[in-house]
Amino acid sequence: MYRDEIRVLDCTIRDGGLMNNHRFDHKLVREVYKAVSEAGVDYMEMGYRNSKELFSTEEYGPWKFCDDEDIQQVIDGIESKTKISIMVDVGRVNVDDVKPAADSPVDMIRVATYVKDIDKAIFLVNNFADKGYETTTNIMAISRDKGPELDEALHQIQEESKVKVVYIVDSFGALYQEPVEELIKRARQILKNREVGFHGHNHQQLAFSNTIEAIIHDANYVDGTVYGIGRAAGNCPLELLVGFLNNPKFDIRPILDLISHEFVPLRNEIEWGYVIPYAISGMMNEHPRAAMALRNSDNKKNYREFYESLVSPEMD
Amino acid sequence: MYRDEIRVLDCTIRDGGLMNNHRFDHKLVREVYKAVSEAGVDYMEMGYRNSKELFSTEEYGPWKFCDDEDIQQVIDGIESKTKISIMVDVGRVNVDDVKPAADSPVDMIRVATYVKDIDKAIFLVNNFADKGYETTTNIMAISRDKGPELDEALHQIQEESKVKVVYIVDSFGALYQEPVEELIKRARQILKNREVGFHGHNHQQLAFSNTIEAIIHDANYVDGTVYGIGRAAGNCPLELLVGFLNNPKFDIRPILDLISHEFVPLRNEIEWGYVIPYAISGMMNEHPRAAMALRNSDNKKNYREFYESLVSPEMD
Repeated sequence: MYRDEIRVLDCTIRDGGLMNNHRFDHKLVREVYKAVSEAGVDYMEMGYRNSKELFSTEEYGPWKFCDDEDIQQVIDGIESKTKISIMVDVGRVNVDDVKPAADSPVDMIRVATYVKDIDKAIFLVNNFADKGYETTTNIMAISRDKGPELDEALHQIQEESKVKVVYIVDSFGALYQEPVEELIKRARQILKNREVGFHGHNHQQLAFSNTIEAIIHDANYVDGTVYGIGRAAGNCPLELLVGFLNNPKFDIRPILDLISHEFVPLRNEIEWGYVIPYAISGMMNEHPRAAMALRNSDNKKNYREFYESLVSPEMD
Repeated sequence: MYRDEIRVLDCTIRDGGLMNNHRFDHKLVREVYKAVSEAGVDYMEMGYRNSKELFSTEEYGPWKFCDDEDIQQVIDGIESKTKISIMVDVGRVNVDDVKPAADSPVDMIRVATYVKDIDKAIFLVNNFADKGYETTTNIMAISRDKGPELDEALHQIQEESKVKVVYIVDSFGALYQEPVEELIKRARQILKNREVGFHGHNHQQLAFSNTIEAIIHDANYVDGTVYGIGRAAGNCPLELLVGFLNNPKFDIRPILDLISHEFVPLRNEIEWGYVIPYAISGMMNEHPRAAMALRNSDNKKNYREFYESLVSPEMD
């Protein structure tokens, strides 16, 4: 698939950080930046900008906060056309922590939101857009909020927001290709002069195929992570995505080296990928929270019991 | 997705056997049969029926030959509605090794063939059909043989063969969903009164999504394996497939138990799943042979070198 407008965003460090409290050392982040730059990836997302009044810098590593200084340090001296992205969560960012774009190494800010928080997301997007950043709105947990409330949110974005890209985010890895098609078409119909993006989770081994599905239906912004690292089962593997996109600007080889040297060993420290409780969460359209807790418990291989707990939850 | 006509075939032991020379012990095969029977899976494929004149019974385990006696032993005493399947390869089976269906525990014989061997496959299918078996023709490596030669083979099957089901087999894990759609539609157009099936390989994490794609376009026979075991990256995980199909006749829980107790430990002995050289083979539309050899060598993590060897093969 070749389409000049397609932009690939690497969120290895940002989504992967959800598995290690954002404690990647600067050296690794620099290696990732170097590799994705050589590979011709359009954006690299470094992490979240969270308020230090809400989260402890002792409990979390630097990529939970993404100070401009930390970013500057890891990109310093590396030749690159890759733009820098950070993510903010509605309710967790202090807008005063975001300087004007001209004074920051950051090019793009992505605002993650649930449908219900769309007003707050629009406020943040417009604040960052006015400061000179490219912006996106990433609508999370969309497999739960597919009804008329989603249409309403999309119309509101179209009318009130300065956003450039709106992402459909399959947080629970619950979507099959038909709902992806439907959601991308709906978003494109309502959002007249914006781009549509897709961010998948791999709980049911569908992150890559759903990303292809989104591209087929004209989503132009797509996310990947090196070796598929990310929360729970992880995300769409960047190497598969680059292999699929026939744009000659991409080169898969630096990513293959990065996997050989850094991510195969890292997989022994952090668990991501195809793990049955994550698959069950995806099938059930549930947040992987319970599955992640199970994987950190002594009972981590009791798949049937975990399944039963989701099928027949205790009700009041 | 609910469609009453859909039939699920478990080929755990058959395709998984390609990774251990078919040396599963009878106890494990019996556990799989018990679990897929309880889960309501329609067919279980035990292995290949190869001629003992061509392959050594010392080098290979029992499921390379699938004697009726071995099958009888593993199914004995287990209550089940699951039918038994075996596979034969064109050129490797002695038809005299196949008794009439009435004298055998086997219900279905699947004939695996390349497009070029379709005449031989039709001969075998008709021989087995005349003996009273259900039959399928599994057209392998279809990502290489998608041209007019495939149409010709399909027409020949339609005109000369007694086969019940024709499978599209993505041996190299090279197909994306658009080619799957195209191939299933083409097969259904030419094959008027047969069923169409799909067997995927997971080199690019697309076995499950391609199986869904095939189902969307009315393929009614689909293959899965427990925990995705199978040659190289493996196949469509049976548990995901059963989760996707909403037919109440299926119960995922016996499969979850089987994974907990047998297949998680087995994964430490046999390597399958998402491994970069298999992913590269899939992208390149290559047989995973070279990647499997690499994984058994000392150089198994040199992904870039492997990639280069496929991009720039030495030409005479």
